[in-house]
Parts: sequence; C-alpha cells; structure tokens
Amino acid sequence: MSTFPAFRAGLFAAAFTAAVPAFATPQQGSGVAWDIVEGLTTEIGPRMAGSEAEARARDWGSAKLKALGFQNVRVEEFKTLAWQRGPESAKLTAPYAQPLAITALGFSVPTPKGGLKAPLVYFPTLAALEAAPDGSLKGKVAFIDHAMRAAQDGSGYGPYGNVRRQGPSVASRKGAAGVVIRSAGTDSHRNPHTGVTVFAKDVQPIPAGAVSNPDADLIARTAARTAAGGKPMAIDLTLEGKPFPDAPSGNVVADLPGRDPSLPIIVIACHLDSWDLGTGAIDDASGCAIVTAAALAAQQGGQALRTIRVLWSGNEEMGIGGGGGAVYARMHGAEPHAVAMESDFGADKVWAAKFNTAAENKPMVDKVKAALWPMGIVPHEGETEGGADVAAIIKAQDLAVIDLGQDGMHYFDLHHTPDDTLDKVDPAALQQNVDAWTAVLKVIANEPGVIGKGQ
Amino acid sequence: MSTFPAFRAGLFAAAFTAAVPAFATPQQGSGVAWDIVEGLTTEIGPRMAGSEAEARARDWGSAKLKALGFQNVRVEEFKTLAWQRGPESAKLTAPYAQPLAITALGFSVPTPKGGLKAPLVYFPTLAALEAAPDGSLKGKVAFIDHAMRAAQDGSGYGPYGNVRRQGPSVASRKGAAGVVIRSAGTDSHRNPHTGVTVFAKDVQPIPAGAVSNPDADLIARTAARTAAGGKPMAIDLTLEGKPFPDAPSGNVVADLPGRDPSLPIIVIACHLDSWDLGTGAIDDASGCAIVTAAALAAQQGGQALRTIRVLWSGNEEMGIGGGGGAVYARMHGAEPHAVAMESDFGADKVWAAKFNTAAENKPMVDKVKAALWPMGIVPHEGETEGGADVAAIIKAQDLAVIDLGQDGMHYFDLHHTPDDTLDKVDPAALQQNVDAWTAVLKVIANEPGVIGKGQ
Repeated sequence: MSTFPAFRAGLFAAAFTAAVPAFATPQQGSGVAWDIVEGLTTEIGPRMAGSEAEARARDWGSAKLKALGFQNVRVEEFKTLAWQRGPESAKLTAPYAQPLAITALGFSVPTPKGGLKAPLVYFPTLAALEAAPDGSLKGKVAFIDHAMRAAQDGSGYGPYGNVRRQGPSVASRKGAAGVVIRSAGTDSHRNPHTGVTVFAKDVQPIPAGAVSNPDADLIARTAARTAAGGKPMAIDLTLEGKPFPDAPSGNVVADLPGRDPSLPIIVIACHLDSWDLGTGAIDDASGCAIVTAAALAAQQGGQALRTIRVLWSGNEEMGIGGGGGAVYARMHGAEPHAVAMESDFGADKVWAAKFNTAAENKPMVDKVKAALWPMGIVPHEGETEGGADVAAIIKAQDLAVIDLGQDGMHYFDLHHTPDDTLDKVDPAALQQNVDAWTAVLKVIANEPGVIGKGQ
Repeated sequence: MSTFPAFRAGLFAAAFTAAVPAFATPQQGSGVAWDIVEGLTTEIGPRMAGSEAEARARDWGSAKLKALGFQNVRVEEFKTLAWQRGPESAKLTAPYAQPLAITALGFSVPTPKGGLKAPLVYFPTLAALEAAPDGSLKGKVAFIDHAMRAAQDGSGYGPYGNVRRQGPSVASRKGAAGVVIRSAGTDSHRNPHTGVTVFAKDVQPIPAGAVSNPDADLIARTAARTAAGGKPMAIDLTLEGKPFPDAPSGNVVADLPGRDPSLPIIVIACHLDSWDLGTGAIDDASGCAIVTAAALAAQQGGQALRTIRVLWSGNEEMGIGGGGGAVYARMHGAEPHAVAMESDFGADKVWAAKFNTAAENKPMVDKVKAALWPMGIVPHEGETEGGADVAAIIKAQDLAVIDLGQDGMHYFDLHHTPDDTLDKVDPAALQQNVDAWTAVLKVIANEPGVIGKGQ
C-alpha cells in the first residue's frame, strides 16, 4: 500500500481526539508477580547464561527478594560451559536469491571466515535425514523440515524439538558441513527460535542454525521446484557464535522460614537466565514472578509451618544437566526437602495438576485438588515432570512432585524468539498462576506429616 | 523452559505416527491468483524499487502475463529516486542496556561513522514533539510514540502514519540529530515497520528509524522511570541506508483487448515493487494476483466489450507522486480511459464498495451492487480513494472510480515488515477478492454507454 498521503486524503480527514497519555504503554498489570516480570524485562532484559547481564540479573533478583521480605537471600555462584552469539545471516543464493531470517543454535560452531557457501539439501523430516547414506552430505548443508503443531501440554516439543536437539548431530554424521532447521516453533513470524543443540560425542560439531517458519516454508516451496526438475538450492551461511568454557553463572536462593524449621522444606524454582533474542518474559521471568509472589501470598493467613524456598536458577537454558538445578542439588543435598516444584512454561493459565505423592498423602492431595478445582484446574494422572531446575534435587532426595500444567497452545509461538517480551504476558493469566500456586503452597507448606513420593 | 530432554521424558513418549509428507509446506492455494502470489514471493521475493530484484520482477511479470494470454505485454522503464538499506542496529545504553529491533525509514540518511551515540528524549505523541521549543533537541535523538489501533478500513494509518511521514521533519526542525519512532503498525512482534518518510524542503534530513511495538513499549516504560527521577535514556544508533538517484524502475502493462477497441478502456492496477524486509506477499503481490486473475475470469463468459488493462506498477512504495502511477499517466494520457481501479490493501476479504460514477450510470452501479451483495460486500457512500497507482490517470482524465474495500484489521500487523510473506495470505480470502473484482469487471467492461465520474 502506498506511503504517499496525498492519495489517501480520506484517511487524513478522520479526527482523533482521544486524550493524549503521558506514556503510550499499552498494557499494565499490578502486584508482585507483574512487578517482577516488568522489572526484570525492563531493567535487565536479555540475560544469557554466563553473560555480564546474567550477573546483573542476579544482583537485581537478590535486591528484589530482600525488598520483598525474604530471608537468607544469597547468590551461589558457579562456573559453566556457555555459548556466545556472533554475527549471523543467511541467504538462499540459488535457484532464487532470498534473504533468510536465521539464528544460530546454542553450541553451534562458527562458519569459516567469509561464510559457508554450499549446496542446500532438503529433508522433509529428521527420519529422512537419518535414512541418507553416511558421507552423502560431504560439503553440503542439510535442511531439516518438520511439521510441529501446538499442543495444550506442549507435547509437540518432544518429537519436533528433536530436530533441533539431535538433527545437527545426525547431519554431521552424514558428512554435512552445516545444518539449518525449521525452527522448533508454532508461529508464523519471521523470528527464528534458538535453543541448544547437543552434539553427540562421536561427531564433529558443525555450524547449526534455525530459520523462521515462513523462511522454512520458502525453502520447502523452492525444494519442491528443485525436485520437479528445477535448479538445485544453494545457501550462503554466516553463523559466528561459539562455545566458551568457565563462564560465571549462579543461583539466587531465598527463604521464607517456616514455624517449624526442623521440617523438610518446600523448594519452588524458576530460572533467571534467558535466551538473548528476547527479554525472557515468558521464559522465564514469569516463572520467577509466579513462584515468588505465591510464596509471599501463602503467608497472608499467617506464617507457614514449613520453610518455603525460592530458587531462581542460573544457566537453565544451556545447562544440559549441569546447570543451576544440578548445582543447587550438590550444594543443598544435605538439607531435607519435602516437595520440589517448578514454573517454567510461560504465563498462560494453569489448567491441570499432576501429583507424585505417597498414598498416605491422599488427604493432603485431595485438599489441593479441591482448592484448584474452582480455578478450572483439573487433576491429571500422567507422570510428573518436575523440570530442569528441580530434577536433580528430586532425584537426589527421591522427592514428592506436584506439577501445575500451564496452557501451552501459544508457548511455542514465542519460546526462544525475539518475541519473548513483556507484552506477551497477560496480567490476568499471570495472576491466575499466582493464585493456583498459592493454593497449593497453603496446603503443602502447612502439612505437618511426612510428605513422600508415590511408589 | 528447559531445552534438556532427559527432564521432559513425558514429552518424548508421545507417538507421532502421522504420514510423512515429501514437503512440509503447510498451506496451499490454487488458481491464477494464488499462482501469482506464490510465484512472485518464492521466485523473486523482496523487490525494492530501483533494485536489480525489481528488474527481475518485471521480467517475471512480463513472462507470466504473456503465458496467461494477455496481449501487448510491455515493460515501460523509467528512472527514479530510490533508497537503499544499509546495516542497521540500535541499543539503549542507559539507563539499561537493551538491544532494540529497529529498521531505517526510507529516505533516512546515514548515521555518522561508528554510529550516533546520543541522549534519547521521549515524546508520547507527534503533537508533544511539535510543542517542543525549536533547537531544544540539539545533539539528541527524539523518540516519538503513538497509540495506533487497527481499523477495518485502515483509517488509523492516516493520523498515526503521520508519525512516520512527518515526525522526522519535525524532529529535525527541533534540532534533533536523529529520530526513532514507534512503528506505524498494530502488531506485537519484534518486526519493525519500514516505509518512507518525507523530509520537508526546509529541514536537514536526519537518520530516521522505527522500532517494533514491543521495543517501543520498553522505551515507554523506561521513559516513565526517567520521568519519575531515574537516569536519562541514551541510545546508540546505526542506520546506514541512503537515497540514490536515477535508479531504474518500470511498469509492466498488459491488455485483454475488448470487442470494441474504440471504447475507453478499464485500467486495473497493483504494484510490483515491495519493501525489502518481507517478500511483498500482501503488499502487493496479492493486488497483482487479484486484478490479473479477475481480468481473465471476466472473459470466461466471452470476450468483454471493453479492453481491460492491467498495470503492475513500479516504484509505488518510494514514488511520492512520481512513481509508476504518475509515469503511466504521462505515457498513456492520450488513450481514453473509462474507469481506474487499484488493489493495494492486502488479501483479506472485500467487505465494502465505494463508487464515484455519474448519475447516468446508476443502472450499471446497481448491477454491480447486486452482484457484490451475495459476497457480503456492502455499498458505502464515502469518498473514493483510487490509490497511488491510478491517482494520476484519474486526475488527468477525470475518471470514474470504484473502490473495493478490503478488511484492514490485520493489514497493519504485517505492512512493511519482514512478516509480509506468503503464509499470511488466506487462499479463500484471496479468491473472494478475485470473485468480487470479476463481478465488477463483468458489468463495467460490458457497459456500452459512457461511464463518467460523479459531480
């Protein structure tokens, strides 16, 4: 459409006489949870594990938790293998010149100086790539497509996320000089999804990137022309990100002491680090906001019986088993825990609850279910997951787990993209999360008996 | 959310056994219109006025129109002032370090070598900037906010688009070294909206860019902290795009000759150039697709009485009154025209029709209205607009105009962004456009009497 106003005179005649605000910010929430998400995304923003920004986020979190009245607030630093993004760009050079919206995957290695110029070979699925003969991709870049669909419980991320997690290793095993995947995401925006890939021990790491879904569509359409007798595809790829060892990271840990300090504690976790492309609003400032606000709200009827601890974990995104959750379990393995829970699936409404608790705890669980039901939260019998920040302590102490399942229909529209920003957080849904967590904590943190895991 | 699969075992157990397609392209249309949008976006992609890609698009269009059976297909070249994008980036450096998603506006001038580092001053509206004292922004960058809302007829683009069109001139007049605006768009994605700005003759052109809406939200939140006593904002801005004169552009013109070549012709227009950030699917490959498919479909009951001409205009986006539409009027001013129409507002459903026709043509207009009504298209009494590609010929020959108004509720989510890609075109809505245009053409191209404009 034209940008030339004289030809759109009709548009200009409209009188807009609405009151002029001092600030045009469209959406505002309130309360502790909103304050944390708004503050962390505004005052810190992107906070990659191992970065200076993640260190600033720890200071920010520590100050915030103290100001909110938490006790024993401490930063527990550790070193980690991290990864740093570099300049990145890509374009199809044949059969059609088309710029591509690309981002490197975490633990990608850099392309050669001047970029990687190579034929691009299309695989509709990871299985199709696996079926290619070894060595058949020598000097080529593999493109791996897939057809991820949204699911309320996020379950599409398992199989389709494997394209990102395993695809680069498979491509390398076939001899590929590089690999590009369709983003593990469900949106249709020109914002590619990053995330770590894990190179298997027996393969050479190669440059690995993800293009946005519209770019992947373009590649698929072009590949169809190639397959129908058209010219082959070629790509010019620059991905300069690279791993770096011994980066500083750390957890922020804070307590709301219980009336009976001898009872095993409740730990509720989130992660403080984020990917660099967005400001980490849904992944996972929201999680930290939810658990922190709920821990405080659970004290409103009086101090809880058990200590509630919040863990704002460092380096969850690139931790691969050695992130903040594992460090926490090592450092706090001697302290008795009762239940571990995590919030790390965005800020949409909680709709399901899963329990891994002992048969003896049925009365407690029934109380939790009864408190959640009016909020539209249904019990579900599936296996609990815990999450990356609590998995190690759950395993170490064989803990009971309660999962509060958030609606994931839109989570993978935003996950690991530039679009993970504050405007995506619905204040009402965020508050529903806080209310659900508060309801759970009020029951379990006041449970005097032994809380055990299921058989 | 974790990227580490071992902790999400539940997700991995799901069995996905759907049949594997050879290509994972999600959406397919069919027919002439889809074929044009799909082809132009896939085989050409971005095609800035004055670029080599725009020249390839002319060749592509010319070949396509010949293949579709159009007669007298010709490329009519002209020279134009154009603008070329360069590297561009921005970050807030104070009070918080935050990268910003930015794009230069067309006719921006480059920032100094090494970038422009300056205080950033927030204005909630263009009116607030206009109220600032002259010279008060010396050495500073102005940020202009606004609160554009979507409208079915696109009318928000008038007043809010002025922030882009006039804002940079106003900022320059106040002494600003640069200007950044909230994108003239209605989405919440990290994709800034480009588009030309028009520097007034009496001001010094300055570097001018637009940030995405989430970035503008961030700036507004930060500015509120500054206003409440926080530290002032500062920006580091790099926008290296610059104007260049005498760039090659051109129109593609093609006819479906009528049974009576002596009658004034019907010209239906779109534009072939696009902004460079997306692939110009809705702006305006869809328009070319719609008018072309409709011209052909209007012949299905037999050759029309009047010649129908399609004009795929060059350099609409940066034409500012001298683009392809003006060139067409100069070159074809001697040929009698009857009606001029344009499609340049995306691919969403047509919902309204406006007429500027002589009272004597009421029976013809009534036939058109009757044909459109079953498609949900209502007549509207407002002033017709024509559009940039037909405005000059309408003015030169005092032509009748018929506007088919498309639903614009989502147009400014995509307009001039990287997100203007094929997946945004709904094949069913595209076809409804073709059907509506066909219905109009069948009546007016078979009208034997004089077709005149309203008084």
